[in-house]
Amino acid sequence: MSSIRLAIVGLGKIARDQHLQAIAANDGIELVAVASRNARLDGVHCFTDIDALLASGVEIDAVSLCTPPQGRFEQARAALLAGKHVMLEKPPGATIAEVFALDRLASQQGVSLFATWHSREAAAVEPARKLLAERKVKSVHVEWKEDVRHWHPGQDWIWEPGGLGVFDPGINALSIVTRIMPESFHLTASDLSFPANRAAPIAADLEFRSASGIALTAAFDWRQTGPQTWDIRVETEEGPVVLTHGGSRLFVDGDAQIVEEDREYRNLYKHFVSLVNGGQSDTDFSPLVHVADAFMLGRRHVVETFED
Amino acid sequence: MSSIRLAIVGLGKIARDQHLQAIAANDGIELVAVASRNARLDGVHCFTDIDALLASGVEIDAVSLCTPPQGRFEQARAALLAGKHVMLEKPPGATIAEVFALDRLASQQGVSLFATWHSREAAAVEPARKLLAERKVKSVHVEWKEDVRHWHPGQDWIWEPGGLGVFDPGINALSIVTRIMPESFHLTASDLSFPANRAAPIAADLEFRSASGIALTAAFDWRQTGPQTWDIRVETEEGPVVLTHGGSRLFVDGDAQIVEEDREYRNLYKHFVSLVNGGQSDTDFSPLVHVADAFMLGRRHVVETFED
Repeated sequence: MSSIRLAIVGLGKIARDQHLQAIAANDGIELVAVASRNARLDGVHCFTDIDALLASGVEIDAVSLCTPPQGRFEQARAALLAGKHVMLEKPPGATIAEVFALDRLASQQGVSLFATWHSREAAAVEPARKLLAERKVKSVHVEWKEDVRHWHPGQDWIWEPGGLGVFDPGINALSIVTRIMPESFHLTASDLSFPANRAAPIAADLEFRSASGIALTAAFDWRQTGPQTWDIRVETEEGPVVLTHGGSRLFVDGDAQIVEEDREYRNLYKHFVSLVNGGQSDTDFSPLVHVADAFMLGRRHVVETFED
Repeated sequence: MSSIRLAIVGLGKIARDQHLQAIAANDGIELVAVASRNARLDGVHCFTDIDALLASGVEIDAVSLCTPPQGRFEQARAALLAGKHVMLEKPPGATIAEVFALDRLASQQGVSLFATWHSREAAAVEPARKLLAERKVKSVHVEWKEDVRHWHPGQDWIWEPGGLGVFDPGINALSIVTRIMPESFHLTASDLSFPANRAAPIAADLEFRSASGIALTAAFDWRQTGPQTWDIRVETEEGPVVLTHGGSRLFVDGDAQIVEEDREYRNLYKHFVSLVNGGQSDTDFSPLVHVADAFMLGRRHVVETFED
């Protein structure tokens, strides 16, 4: 099978930190073009935007969108209408309605759409999922607390409507929990803390309930300095199952488990190659649905101003 | 075909104002029971909640949920698990995740689920839908402005998280627009006005865009005294198509059209009977999706306190 000719749209921090080397590390896919307003990359065709790329005649099979979620719909739609397979960074869009529309369009066009959740590829996630399928879950508690100044320096778009604020990391936790839980769940209460000068929350406390009545809670906070916390603790009748370090380490009944090296983005591109070659899509939007629910059902609290 | 034996859960204002007479006016369905914390109804079996109803041995085929959206999930789930068909007042739930879960459960159980949008049964909606399918839409503007003190006196739940605030009427407009528009659309901007002492917005200004680029705007406001406004104005290349009075009157190219008498709830129950007898469900959650998107993408503004 010939290699998938890929273009990246949006050559920002996440593309440079993760995507470029993940593509290079995968067989079956090669980077041939980049579309970026300001940045260029040696050795590939460079364009200022996706429309110029699609009009150029440079032959590509697929597009990976690494731009911020606001405005990504038009880029994805243009690529799908041009018959290209599309891979979306998380979150897949700024609204639920637009990602559903992209899903329908990809089906109509007969191309692959992959809504990625990189945290689902963290090393402990699949072992935890298998384990929980065999156990009886009693409760789940998520703590996802980090220092926004360290991880998102000067990224103003995350504080704008659509940028999601603390849900930008929090959605990673939700992408793991929706994957490892043996049943679905829905939000029952949401407390959102908005800095007085910002349009997006800096902290969120959430309560969910599964269909059968299991309680899930989540505490997201962007104000944590010092050690960072990305933990998911699942109490089961057989003992605790704990994922730490963003899903890369696993503790079962108190014992650290040996898990594989983390290869989140490498795995994403491996999966994308397999989706494209198999004529499939992978579009689970449930983490974004929970975030939208958290805003809709959220009680808002105003907290102190945040300066970057 | 034998008549559907129906129970109403939640005997509040909407059930008494609309549901009881709509059921009585329809062949093929009859009210046999009511579950209500405080209210009773002569001539039918009365219970304090749905669990008591389902445990009672009173034979029913279907349940119509007229309770507020918060907490409706457990009632709907109990009914579906008991093998009953379910009809949901609008909005169908407090979260997107829960209504999707109900949809899956109804499919698994092989029973009918009907997420109703009563405004879609307003007399001008179907004529407008047919007309717009033949025309080229240029833009859409919705104005939905009413006096909350008149329409929701003392209904505190509408101001709580999950009560949706001005989206409680606004979702009616969205249910009409999603029905009459020939293509789907998604939110691009949202400004929400929250009274300083309330957890839900009293006004909302929304901008949407269809896949092909048509601009849709909506202005929802709960502070309008005097004449009330529930209008949808669609500009087409062939002239304006205007729905007024909540979708019950139609003006085409400036001329008032003759439309049928309004029978919103009567039509809903007629449709429910046909869904149940045909083994079908009708679960279009797109109006609620747009509302969740409006909260997620919303820029929040604090406005003066609201006292009922």
